Amino acid sequence: MDGKTMQDTRPKKVVLAFSGGLDTSVILKWMQIKYDCEIVTFTADLGQGDEVEAARDKAISLGVKPQNVFVEDLRNELVASYAAPVFRANAAYEGYYLMGTPIARPLVAKRQIEIARAVGADSVAHGATGKGNDQLRFELAYYALAPEVRVIAPWREWDMAGRAQLVAFADAHGLSVGKDKRGAPPYSSDANLLHVSCEGKALEDPWISPEDDAWSRTVAPELAPDRPTWVEIHFERGDPVALDGVSMSPAALLSRLNEIGAANGVGRLDIVDTRYVGLKCRGLFETPGGTIWQVAHRTIESITLDRGEAHLKDELMPKYAELVYNGYWFAPEREMLQALIDKSQERVTGKVRLRLYKGNVIVEGRQSPNTLYDQDLVTFEDGGDYDQRDATGFIRINALRLRLLGRIRNALPLV
Amino acid sequence: MDGKTMQDTRPKKVVLAFSGGLDTSVILKWMQIKYDCEIVTFTADLGQGDEVEAARDKAISLGVKPQNVFVEDLRNELVASYAAPVFRANAAYEGYYLMGTPIARPLVAKRQIEIARAVGADSVAHGATGKGNDQLRFELAYYALAPEVRVIAPWREWDMAGRAQLVAFADAHGLSVGKDKRGAPPYSSDANLLHVSCEGKALEDPWISPEDDAWSRTVAPELAPDRPTWVEIHFERGDPVALDGVSMSPAALLSRLNEIGAANGVGRLDIVDTRYVGLKCRGLFETPGGTIWQVAHRTIESITLDRGEAHLKDELMPKYAELVYNGYWFAPEREMLQALIDKSQERVTGKVRLRLYKGNVIVEGRQSPNTLYDQDLVTFEDGGDYDQRDATGFIRINALRLRLLGRIRNALPLV
Amino acid sequence: MDGKTMQDTRPKKVVLAFSGGLDTSVILKWMQIKYDCEIVTFTADLGQGDEVEAARDKAISLGVKPQNVFVEDLRNELVASYAAPVFRANAAYEGYYLMGTPIARPLVAKRQIEIARAVGADSVAHGATGKGNDQLRFELAYYALAPEVRVIAPWREWDMAGRAQLVAFADAHGLSVGKDKRGAPPYSSDANLLHVSCEGKALEDPWISPEDDAWSRTVAPELAPDRPTWVEIHFERGDPVALDGVSMSPAALLSRLNEIGAANGVGRLDIVDTRYVGLKCRGLFETPGGTIWQVAHRTIESITLDRGEAHLKDELMPKYAELVYNGYWFAPEREMLQALIDKSQERVTGKVRLRLYKGNVIVEGRQSPNTLYDQDLVTFEDGGDYDQRDATGFIRINALRLRLLGRIRNALPLV
Amino acid sequence: MDGKTMQDTRPKKVVLAFSGGLDTSVILKWMQIKYDCEIVTFTADLGQGDEVEAARDKAISLGVKPQNVFVEDLRNELVASYAAPVFRANAAYEGYYLMGTPIARPLVAKRQIEIARAVGADSVAHGATGKGNDQLRFELAYYALAPEVRVIAPWREWDMAGRAQLVAFADAHGLSVGKDKRGAPPYSSDANLLHVSCEGKALEDPWISPEDDAWSRTVAPELAPDRPTWVEIHFERGDPVALDGVSMSPAALLSRLNEIGAANGVGRLDIVDTRYVGLKCRGLFETPGGTIWQVAHRTIESITLDRGEAHLKDELMPKYAELVYNGYWFAPEREMLQALIDKSQERVTGKVRLRLYKGNVIVEGRQSPNTLYDQDLVTFEDGGDYDQRDATGFIRINALRLRLLGRIRNALPLV
Repeated sequence: MDGKTMQDTRPKKVVLAFSGGLDTSVILKWMQIKYDCEIVTFTADLGQGDEVEAARDKAISLGVKPQNVFVEDLRNELVASYAAPVFRANAAYEGYYLMGTPIARPLVAKRQIEIARAVGADSVAHGATGKGNDQLRFELAYYALAPEVRVIAPWREWDMAGRAQLVAFADAHGLSVGKDKRGAPPYSSDANLLHVSCEGKALEDPWISPEDDAWSRTVAPELAPDRPTWVEIHFERGDPVALDGVSMSPAALLSRLNEIGAANGVGRLDIVDTRYVGLKCRGLFETPGGTIWQVAHRTIESITLDRGEAHLKDELMPKYAELVYNGYWFAPEREMLQALIDKSQERVTGKVRLRLYKGNVIVEGRQSPNTLYDQDLVTFEDGGDYDQRDATGFIRINALRLRLLGRIRNALPLV
Repeated sequence: MDGKTMQDTRPKKVVLAFSGGLDTSVILKWMQIKYDCEIVTFTADLGQGDEVEAARDKAISLGVKPQNVFVEDLRNELVASYAAPVFRANAAYEGYYLMGTPIARPLVAKRQIEIARAVGADSVAHGATGKGNDQLRFELAYYALAPEVRVIAPWREWDMAGRAQLVAFADAHGLSVGKDKRGAPPYSSDANLLHVSCEGKALEDPWISPEDDAWSRTVAPELAPDRPTWVEIHFERGDPVALDGVSMSPAALLSRLNEIGAANGVGRLDIVDTRYVGLKCRGLFETPGGTIWQVAHRTIESITLDRGEAHLKDELMPKYAELVYNGYWFAPEREMLQALIDKSQERVTGKVRLRLYKGNVIVEGRQSPNTLYDQDLVTFEDGGDYDQRDATGFIRINALRLRLLGRIRNALPLV
Repeated sequence: MDGKTMQDTRPKKVVLAFSGGLDTSVILKWMQIKYDCEIVTFTADLGQGDEVEAARDKAISLGVKPQNVFVEDLRNELVASYAAPVFRANAAYEGYYLMGTPIARPLVAKRQIEIARAVGADSVAHGATGKGNDQLRFELAYYALAPEVRVIAPWREWDMAGRAQLVAFADAHGLSVGKDKRGAPPYSSDANLLHVSCEGKALEDPWISPEDDAWSRTVAPELAPDRPTWVEIHFERGDPVALDGVSMSPAALLSRLNEIGAANGVGRLDIVDTRYVGLKCRGLFETPGGTIWQVAHRTIESITLDRGEAHLKDELMPKYAELVYNGYWFAPEREMLQALIDKSQERVTGKVRLRLYKGNVIVEGRQSPNTLYDQDLVTFEDGGDYDQRDATGFIRINALRLRLLGRIRNALPLV
Repeated sequence: MDGKTMQDTRPKKVVLAFSGGLDTSVILKWMQIKYDCEIVTFTADLGQGDEVEAARDKAISLGVKPQNVFVEDLRNELVASYAAPVFRANAAYEGYYLMGTPIARPLVAKRQIEIARAVGADSVAHGATGKGNDQLRFELAYYALAPEVRVIAPWREWDMAGRAQLVAFADAHGLSVGKDKRGAPPYSSDANLLHVSCEGKALEDPWISPEDDAWSRTVAPELAPDRPTWVEIHFERGDPVALDGVSMSPAALLSRLNEIGAANGVGRLDIVDTRYVGLKCRGLFETPGGTIWQVAHRTIESITLDRGEAHLKDELMPKYAELVYNGYWFAPEREMLQALIDKSQERVTGKVRLRLYKGNVIVEGRQSPNTLYDQDLVTFEDGGDYDQRDATGFIRINALRLRLLGRIRNALPLV
C-alpha cells in the first residue's frame, strides 16, 4: 500500500450494487453528480422475488451504457456456495438467527469485484447505511478481494438522513418515484431465497408484538392447514440433494422447502440481535426452508457423526456464525473453520422424514448407510459386543482425578 | 488412597437410591443376600409424579429399619440449584436436549453421600444399568464427594440381564410384582419436574415414528387448543421468579410452566444422542416448562447481555452441556464455567411475553430496567449519538489485515 | 446517549496522563492553546524508573495549578490488581508476549476517570499515537468507566507527524527540550515494573538482529554470571507472596524477581506481534521477573490443578490474552473469564524451586499442601489403590465410538 | 459388532510391537505359553538409537519364524507424517510438553495393523503398562483402524508387578538377561528421533532436583560451549525443509537440529503432567531439535499468518494437544483440527535465523516472500496508507457497546 491511498482519489469508474429501487437509483444519480464518474450497475437475482430485468431498464434510463449493465441469476450459487456451507455448520447467530442476509452480501461483493476487474473499474459502491451490518459485509469482502479498491458508501458520505430527503433528491433530479415510496417510511427489509428480514417502525419497541403486515413470506401458525405435511429430505455429504425422492438443483430444492414451510407457518423468528457496530436491533426473520433444512441436517448428523465430530462442530459454531454475521466471509479464519466443518461432512449421507404442522418441524425418522447407531448394542435386553464390566473401569478411571481432588477438598472421611 | 481399596472390601452399610419400584426392590433384596449388609434407603420427590411415601412402606416391608428409611421432597432444590444453573447457561446437549435427567442424578447422589455420612454408611448403590449415562452421573458424583466410598452397581455385577429374570428373582424371594410388570418390558423412562424421557422398544428403530403411547406428559400439537395461551415471565438475575406477575417458589413456577406448556403441545423432542459410553441412543423427551424457560431466558438475555458476554457464553455452552450430560456436575471445571456464567447474570432482570400455540413458543415482547437496547440509537431516520463517519474508520481498520493478506493472495491489481 | 455527543463540544477541564517528557509536555501546551481549557495532570509511578516528582515540577512550570497536579505511586496496585490476575491466567499473547504494557494502561485510565470525577473534569487525554494499541487500552477503558467522557487523542488530531515537528513546536512555545531529544529519534519505549519494551529504528527490519543498545533492563545471557542463582517462590491462592521464605509486598517481590532475573539474562523476547489495528510490529520486550513468575506459576499449578481445571484454563487463555492485549480490561467478558480463572486458584498454594542461569529459568522442584501428585499411585513397582484392569474398561469404552466409526470407514475385516 | 466379541476368543496369530529388550522378550515368551499362538514381531527404527537389527536376531532366537519378523526404518515417516503435523499446530501439552512419545505410538500401531492384515493375524500386542498413557495411544489406534482386532496388553493381564518378577520369569524360561537389568530398576525411558523421556526412581519426588544421569541426550546448559551457534531454518508451507541453505530429508533435518541443540544444552524439560488415566507424573524430557523447531515455526508464522489465523490456531491448540497426548490420533476430531491447521499453513514459507547458546533459543531474524509485515505502514515517522483518523472511528465503534453497558453499570455522570 505504497504512496497515495486510492481512498483519496476521485473514482473514475464505479461498479454499483443496484436493485433498481429508490435508494440505489438516488445513489446512482448522486455519484454521477458528485464524482462525474462512469457507472456500472450489477443486479443479482438472489430469489428476492423482484423482477431483475426491470433494474436493467432503470439503469439505462438513468444513463448507464448498456454494456455497463450486468444482470445475473445467482440463485444456485447463493444456495450451493454460500448457504450450504453455513448449514453444514448448523450456524445460528446468537442462538437463533439463520443469517439469510449475511450469506448473500459476500456473493454480491465478490461479483462486483469480478466485474470491476473485467470492465476496468477502480471503485465499488453499495447502498447499505452506516449503522448496520451490511456495510461491513460488503466492504470487508471488497477489501479482502481487491485491497486497493476505492469504496463508496453514499449513506456515510452525503448529508441526506432519511427517506423524505431521498424523495426530494429524486424529485429534484427527475427520478420517477413510486407513490408507495412517498408516505411514511416502510419497514426496512431484505429478501433472498433463504429469508426475508423486517426491521424498523413499530418493531423498534421490543416489548410490542409485531403487526401482521410485518410478516410477508409465511402464514401465521394459526392460519396454517389443520393437517400436517410430510417431507423426506435426502442428504449427500452434508448437503440436501433430493426431496421426497426427487433430485433437485440447490435453488429448486430450497424454493420447494420454502413453499411447504411457508404454507405450514414454519420459520418465523422475532429477536433482538447485536450488530457488529455494537447496537442492538429488533428484527423479524422468515426462513421457512432454512428452518426445515437446519433441523433435517442436525438430524442426519445425529446418526452419521461421531461424538468427537459433532461436539467439536458445536463448540466452534458460535465463532463461525459470528464471523459470517460480521462480514468476514473471505477472512482466512472463516476458511479454516470451513475446512474443519467440511472435513466432517464426508459421511453425512442419508435421509430424514419430517412432519410440518402449524409452525412445528417434527422429526419422524432418520436413516443412513453410514449410520453409527447400532440397535444391537443399545438394546436393554441383551449384551451384544458390549461388556458392562468395562463400564466399571471406565467410571473408576474417569473418577480417579475427582477422587484425588476430593481428598483435598473434602477432608473428612466417610466413616 | 493408601492401603487396600474400599472397592475390594465387603460393604457393611449401604445407602441405596430407592424408588420403590421393581428394579430397586430387587436390588435391595439382592444386596441383603449377596453382602449381608445393612440397607439404608433414600427416596426423593423430584416431581416424578409417584407417591414417594409408598416407597417408605415398601422399604420397611423389605426389612429396612424405619430409622434407615429417608424420604425427602427435593423439588425446590432440584429447580433452584440444579436446573436453574443449567438454564442460565442456555445449555442444550447436541443442539437440543435440555438434560432433565442429568441435572437430577447429582442431587440424589449428593444426598446419598450426606446420608451416608450421617448414618455411618460405607457404601452407596444405585439402579442404573451398565450401558447408560446415569451410572456415570451417580458414580462420578459419589467419588467426587467421598473419594473412599464403596460403590455398588448391581446391574454391572449380577448375572440378570433383563426384566424376565428380575421378575423371576422377585417371585423367588417373595417380592410382590405388579401385573403390569409381567408382560413385555415397557419403555425405559425417567421422570422429574423438568422432564420425562422415553427409550426402548419400537423406538429402537430410529426411522420409525414414535407411537402415541410413548408420550406421557404433553398433548400432541394437533390436539392442543385452537387458541393460544399467553404468559409473562419475570426474571431476576438470570432466574425466573414470577409468572404473569405472581411470584412463585422455583418448583411451583416450573410446575405451572409445565401445565401450560403440556396443554399447548410444547416441549416434545425426538432425537438420537450419543451417550458418554459411546453408544448412540434414540430417545423421546418431554420438557414443556423447560422449553418455555429456555426461550424466555435467551430472550431476556438478548436485551440485557452485552455481545461480549452473550457470545462467550454461547461458545462455552457446548462444553458445559457435555460436562453436565456426562456426569461431571461436581468436577471443578463445571464449577469454573458456572462461575463465569453466573457472573454474566447479574443484570439479567426483566420480563418476557410469550404466546404458546400448538407446540410453538412465540416471543411477543421483552423489557428490562437494564436493557442495552437503545431505540434512539438504532432508529433509521435520525442520528442520536452515533456518527456514521466512525463506521468508515471501523471498517477500514478492520479491513487492514485483510487488505495486507489480499496483497499476498490476490497478486493482480484491480485496474 | 441522548442529545448532542460530548465529542463535539469544547473540553473545559481535561485530565491528562502526563509523564513529564517531551511528548506529553507538548500535548499539555497544545491543548492549552487549542482548547483554552484547564489542565489536570496525572503522573503514576508504575516502576518505570523515572523520578515522578520531576513531573510535578514540570506540570507547574507549564502553568498547571498545584491542586491540579496528581502524582501517585501505583506500583503495588499495578502488581496486585493488574499483573497478578493476568499471571493467574498464564496469559501470553501470540505465544510469548507477557503484556507488560497492556496491563498498565487500564490502571492509568481508571485513575484518570476517578480524578476526573473528583475534580469535575469533562475530558481525558493521553499521548498514544494513532497506529498503536495503547490508544485502545486508554480509550476503551475511559468509555467503559465513563460513557459520556470527552476523549482527546492529540496524535490523531494535530498535524505534527514526527519528533522533529514536536521539537519545533516545543521551541516555538518555550518548552525546554533536552539535547538528547534533538538528534535522530530514539527507539520507542515503554517501561513499568513488569517490563520494558523497545520498538522502531533499526528494529523495523525484522530480519536484522537487535543492536545491544536496544536492551536496557537485562544483561545478555552471554554476560550473565557463570554460576546459577537459586530462588524459591511461595504462592498463596495463585499469587506469589514470598521469596526464599521472606514475605514481601507485591511490588517488592516483583522488583526482587526483576533484579535476579535481569542479572541472569532472563526475560528477553524479540517478536513480531499483530496489533489490534491490524499492523504487524517488531518489538523487543524485557520481562525478567515476569518470565520467572510465569514459569513458577505454571509449575505450582502442575501439582495443584486438576486436569479439568488446567486444560480449561489453557483453552481459554488465548482469548483472555487477546482481550487484555486489545484493551478490553473493563469489558464484561474479561471479567467473566477472570471469575473462571480465579475460581481455579483457590488451591494453588505451595512453593517452587528454580535455578536461573544465563537466560534459563530451570525448574528444580515443586511442593504443595494441596498437591494432587500421589507418589504411591504413580510408582511403577506397586499398585496402591489403582486396579490396572480398570484401564482395560477405560480403553474399551473410549474406543467404542472409534470402533463403530471404523466399521464404516474401514470396511475390510482384519482376517 | 455382531455375535461374540473377539476379546473373548483365543488369539491365534499376534503382531507384537517388539523392541528386543527384556520386557517385550518376556511378553513374547509369555504369550507363546499362555495362548499357544503364532507370534509376529514388528520392530521400528524411530531414531531411538538402538540397533534394530538386533531385535531380529532376538526374535528368531525366541522361536519366531523369519518370515514373521518385521524390521523397518520409519524415521522419515515419523518426522514427516507424525511430528510435522503436530509442529504445524505449535502443540504443547499442558504448556510445555512437545509430545515426543505420543506422536510415535500411533505410527507403530498403524504398522502393526497393516502387518496383521498382510499376514492374516487376528491380534496385536504391546508392552505398555496399565497406569500410563501409552496403552491408550496403542489401543485407541488399533481399535480405530481395525475395530474387530483382539488386543493383548500383558501388563494388565499377568500377575507380574515389577522388574524383579520379569527377571525371574526370564531366568525360568531361559531368556538371557543382561547384567544391567538385574540390579535396581532403572529409570523408565522412551526414545525416538524427537525426544527422550525419563521417569521413575528419584524423580518420583517432585521436590527433588533430577540427578545428572537422568539426562541422556543433551548437555547441561552449564557445560555447553561458551560461544553461540547460529542456524538458519527454511520453511515451506509450514514445514522445515533446509538448514543453513541445505535441503534435507525430514529425518536428516531433525537429526541435525538434535545435534546442534543437544550440544548447546537446548531442550531440557522437567514437568509434572497429568496422564489421561488421571494420575500426575513427574517426567524429564529432552527434545533439542523439537524445541528449536517450535520456536522457529512460531517465528515464521509471526510474519506470514494473519491475526485471524494465528489466534484461531492458538485457541484450538490445547484441545489438539490433548487429543494427541491422550491417544486420539486416528479420531475424526483430530483429523478435523488438522484440516483447519493445515489450511493455515499454505503461506508459511520463509526463513528464520536463530542463535543457540547454553540452553537458549534466541530469535535473530525472520523473512518471507509472503510476509504480512509492512515496514512502511508501521513506521512511527510517516503515514503510508494508514489514516490515523480511521482509528478514531475504530475505537468509538468498538467502545459503543461498552458505553451502553457503562450507562447501566456506572449510573453517576462524570460532571
